[in-house]
Amino acid sequence: MNAPLHIRATAATAGPTLPGHAALLAADEPMPLDNGARIGPFTCAYQTYGTLNAERSNAILVCHALTGDQYLVEDHPVTGKPGWWSLTVGPGLPIDTDRYFVICANVLGGCMGTTGPQDLDPATGKPFGNQFPVITVGDMVRAQKLLIDHLGIDKLFCVVGGSMGGMQVLQWASAYPERVYGALPIATAARHSTQNIAFHEVGRQAIMADPEWHGGDYYAHGVRPTGGLAVARMAAHITYLSEAALHRKFGRNLQDRSVLSYGFDADFQVESYLRHQGFTFVDRFDANSYLYITRAMDYFDLANEHGGVLADAFRDTPVRYCLMSFSSDWLFPTAGNRAVVHALNAVAANVSFVEIESDKGHDAFLLDEPEFHRLLRGFLNGLAEHRGLAPAAAEA
Amino acid sequence: MNAPLHIRATAATAGPTLPGHAALLAADEPMPLDNGARIGPFTCAYQTYGTLNAERSNAILVCHALTGDQYLVEDHPVTGKPGWWSLTVGPGLPIDTDRYFVICANVLGGCMGTTGPQDLDPATGKPFGNQFPVITVGDMVRAQKLLIDHLGIDKLFCVVGGSMGGMQVLQWASAYPERVYGALPIATAARHSTQNIAFHEVGRQAIMADPEWHGGDYYAHGVRPTGGLAVARMAAHITYLSEAALHRKFGRNLQDRSVLSYGFDADFQVESYLRHQGFTFVDRFDANSYLYITRAMDYFDLANEHGGVLADAFRDTPVRYCLMSFSSDWLFPTAGNRAVVHALNAVAANVSFVEIESDKGHDAFLLDEPEFHRLLRGFLNGLAEHRGLAPAAAEA
Repeated sequence: MNAPLHIRATAATAGPTLPGHAALLAADEPMPLDNGARIGPFTCAYQTYGTLNAERSNAILVCHALTGDQYLVEDHPVTGKPGWWSLTVGPGLPIDTDRYFVICANVLGGCMGTTGPQDLDPATGKPFGNQFPVITVGDMVRAQKLLIDHLGIDKLFCVVGGSMGGMQVLQWASAYPERVYGALPIATAARHSTQNIAFHEVGRQAIMADPEWHGGDYYAHGVRPTGGLAVARMAAHITYLSEAALHRKFGRNLQDRSVLSYGFDADFQVESYLRHQGFTFVDRFDANSYLYITRAMDYFDLANEHGGVLADAFRDTPVRYCLMSFSSDWLFPTAGNRAVVHALNAVAANVSFVEIESDKGHDAFLLDEPEFHRLLRGFLNGLAEHRGLAPAAAEA
Repeated sequence: MNAPLHIRATAATAGPTLPGHAALLAADEPMPLDNGARIGPFTCAYQTYGTLNAERSNAILVCHALTGDQYLVEDHPVTGKPGWWSLTVGPGLPIDTDRYFVICANVLGGCMGTTGPQDLDPATGKPFGNQFPVITVGDMVRAQKLLIDHLGIDKLFCVVGGSMGGMQVLQWASAYPERVYGALPIATAARHSTQNIAFHEVGRQAIMADPEWHGGDYYAHGVRPTGGLAVARMAAHITYLSEAALHRKFGRNLQDRSVLSYGFDADFQVESYLRHQGFTFVDRFDANSYLYITRAMDYFDLANEHGGVLADAFRDTPVRYCLMSFSSDWLFPTAGNRAVVHALNAVAANVSFVEIESDKGHDAFLLDEPEFHRLLRGFLNGLAEHRGLAPAAAEA
């Protein structure tokens, strides 16, 4: 199972129709994967915002979450909806593109241009499907490092991300401390919890129970397991919100009716909302990518790579850390974030931490949370001062 | 949709093979349902334990939860596993069958002998499927009252139940206060929460997305939507446990292997456990019953039947109440139980309440929880003293 395997990959399925940049990486030498295989060359699709300064010292890498992608700011090319961090990244915003050069790449295994299971396997001329190697957060970050090399950036000013993005931030700072000045992991953990593995497994079982999944080979059948993927998304979506947020948003309000229908239509607004979340998600996401990326999160256990001692992942780190959690986040609770802070304290790292009061649950990092934005901006300003970065272009 | 509809029902599919009692109810006059239809005659399958005393004053009605049934004590006729409350009900146990006559009936819409969607519709000679009326907790309790009439019991000594069973207890005490001496709702709420409706909707969508559901008519096709039902059960099962209990039980331990497989098998014990829960559940439960019973829970909102004022559901109640919640129960949190207590306080009802410290989550009421059992026994003893019940037969 761990026998070396050389995989050549190209992003042939989705790539051509998507706007933005694409780099062909690992062209000279295939990139090793944690499972023992090697992959290369492969395509890495990414977006950039702002301008790289002459010193190449103002680059911020944003790492996206499970179902995110590289379209941070602009309207999404498939859904037409605003970019997932358009409230946070842009001119004058907390991650200020007048000052910083922001990069965001679709993760390895994804479905928005970076090579993943829906792309063609050059060995067979057919989509990889379940022949795509099981990748890890370490592999995602290894691929991003090749992209940063490709862009000629020696040291990232900061790596930022929430949820699975935060896992990547921790992996970056641990694996490549000399390449990272500041690290900002948000609403994350150094390992995926038992409950979170359980929720992921439910989603995967929903997909794999859909007969249109065809053992992962649905591309050849001209179908997609949309029913299973929608159910997976619905289950996951509940975990992104707090009970308080769900209650405030929907309560027991009825949808387009004044009395109960005594049927199985979406009587309640929350049902209608969830169905909408599930059924629209399938238009922009590949079911196999969902399987692979959830698996990468399940496998994430940073301490395990260091003899079970999390502090050893950060020993002698020069990186400046800031961690943030949200009080009502039950998917990545404060305790898991704090465990990282304790490990960093144990190696006397430069670290600050704040739990932000919010009743919006895990999704708070995607929303208009003034306290979160204020702290994000403040940490980056302080980091920029230490780094000797020029003020925002508009002010310069 | 609310046009009166007379439904004649018999429990023909599952009934004959199941041990225990079955009463034909509403034979003289069909029973009205909350949706405006009427049902009858219909079969109610039930079990009893212990002996009804001469005064008929020692009867405890136990109401079961979503996937429970009437087999409280003995090994289950389908799975062979111990009855779901065999730790709590029996000779010398907190609900002492040496002293009390215990009754438990399969709910209307269920699949263990009481008429439900898998049973034959006499009008067509075929199973009801999705032609079964959408029933409510009120309908379940109305059916139970017919059973209690049938058994010749004027006043129940106590009505007890956890989760959806607790909803039935509240409904009993509110609708038939003159028929109930004591009420013991456990780990429940006077209305289903937004988050809980959301989880139920995920389960229903999983079932209805299974092509073998056939719009509810799978009986005619000789198949069952086991894939969808298993996924529904898996998602629900996570909500029955606390994160702490899941972590303690499984952590990130691997299943029958020492290293990650880099695949989609059940690498982690928690995955294997969940799959087992899902795949064994389908052997004993009907997917349509799952749809109908979850819907009944969603619809439960006791205040709504009383102009939005929960206290009005209990005005002038003579019933003695004891409510219990578990500190780590996030499905039916203490706050929802306490809301009932506040409503009872507002009408100066006789009520006691305790939140039991436990990290076992919602399922704690099914487990060997000494504090819970001690309090349960204590409340029933006190109630028996007030009621002037003789001590346990063994002591008499």
